[in-house]
Amino acid sequence: MPYKEKIILVTNDDGMFAPGIHSLVDAVRDLGKVYVVSPDSPQSGKGHAVTLREPLRFNKVKTFEGIEAYECSGTPVDCVKWAKNVLLKNETIDLCVSGINHGANYSINIIYSGTMSAAMEAAMEGIHSVGFSLLDFSFEADFTGSAKVARKISEYVLGLEKDPHNPLLLNVNIPALPEEQLKGIKVCRQANARWVEEFQEGTDPHGMKYYWLAGEFVNMDSGNGTDVTALDEGYISVVPCQFDLTDYPAFEKLNGLVNDQ
Amino acid sequence: MPYKEKIILVTNDDGMFAPGIHSLVDAVRDLGKVYVVSPDSPQSGKGHAVTLREPLRFNKVKTFEGIEAYECSGTPVDCVKWAKNVLLKNETIDLCVSGINHGANYSINIIYSGTMSAAMEAAMEGIHSVGFSLLDFSFEADFTGSAKVARKISEYVLGLEKDPHNPLLLNVNIPALPEEQLKGIKVCRQANARWVEEFQEGTDPHGMKYYWLAGEFVNMDSGNGTDVTALDEGYISVVPCQFDLTDYPAFEKLNGLVNDQ
Repeated sequence: MPYKEKIILVTNDDGMFAPGIHSLVDAVRDLGKVYVVSPDSPQSGKGHAVTLREPLRFNKVKTFEGIEAYECSGTPVDCVKWAKNVLLKNETIDLCVSGINHGANYSINIIYSGTMSAAMEAAMEGIHSVGFSLLDFSFEADFTGSAKVARKISEYVLGLEKDPHNPLLLNVNIPALPEEQLKGIKVCRQANARWVEEFQEGTDPHGMKYYWLAGEFVNMDSGNGTDVTALDEGYISVVPCQFDLTDYPAFEKLNGLVNDQ
Repeated sequence: MPYKEKIILVTNDDGMFAPGIHSLVDAVRDLGKVYVVSPDSPQSGKGHAVTLREPLRFNKVKTFEGIEAYECSGTPVDCVKWAKNVLLKNETIDLCVSGINHGANYSINIIYSGTMSAAMEAAMEGIHSVGFSLLDFSFEADFTGSAKVARKISEYVLGLEKDPHNPLLLNVNIPALPEEQLKGIKVCRQANARWVEEFQEGTDPHGMKYYWLAGEFVNMDSGNGTDVTALDEGYISVVPCQFDLTDYPAFEKLNGLVNDQ
């Protein structure tokens, strides 16, 4: 039997024309056979949204030299679902990588992030998956350092045993520092932090009032070992994630509800 | 000081004209001062999506007799953010209830569900929150039993101490059974289950190929105490939820990555 190449699925939430996904493709292109399925427009903040009420379109594109790639009219999670169930339904995907996102996805942002939701969707399918985010929102961000991090971590994860019932799901954030100033990798827990929102109010050209979501990220977690602290110190944060949201310690708060039946 | 009424925020993901939210408003309307902020169109499957790239519109509507209500052009999470930060910014919300959803949101569907994501967003803001879902997708579903369940659970949660740093977040699913056949409440863990997807392929009237997401829900969890099992047995499932996605047991799998620096 011939040597079977590793199969790597690449996606993101910034869309196919964002420089971050090009850096990621280049970082992993010689680690296996790479496929790209990525949104045809920016999908930041789309969380785990799926497209149920409309059909989806997938167009084959030549955006990445030598790589089979498709643009998708839907969300990052749609991209992963279609790649797994249509494009690669007769293959085993060894790794899904998502990003490199233009901007941070640490702490609670896992929940809002299309980048991380795509990776999480792949992990739900039993695939080792990693979301990568650079702490620089700009289109001109320098991905040199973060691409090397993405390659190193991708190579590490590809070297692990497959584990379809308990796949690895990593949220990797990389400080916006010159490569030589990156301090190394810290495995972290998700910080307890949140957005303190403000809505900008305005009036549109037609005289109609609108609100535009804005806000400030606030870390309320003074404990050790969080991703926010590691990033502040110049480390690359790696948070292993899972998707059992059950709050086991809260069971006892509900005794009164159940006993009252 | 006069008796301060409890403030209850009601939202959903099926939109303001879905019968389920009317049942929910009627179920809680005498438990406090009720406000409704709900999407102006169906938002099923929108997960924790937020609207970042477009402005949002909120229109005051007279949809609910005697209740201050607003329709929102965005997602369920947008509704909660605006209610918390604009409409009720000078108030303390005592309870956020979301639903009653037309259709199940058990197990992994917490992640995809706009209903549960709205409740989760409120919990992130420190507010006790509950998402209610009836296991009947139809617009003509009978909400009689589920509305009584929603009232009972809402009353229970309103009776708890406020706990802004550790609010209760409940995912409640109700079997589509006649009221007298409902067996009572079981506090459960989220089942390990997932969607096995199929995409329906088709050609649109303009000759363009499309894919439409479909699929079947499969419970792979043979263990005890899951929401799926409880519902199968005719119980109302209540899963307490949280949003720290850190996979603590996975830390050791990453030793090789960190030690190799």
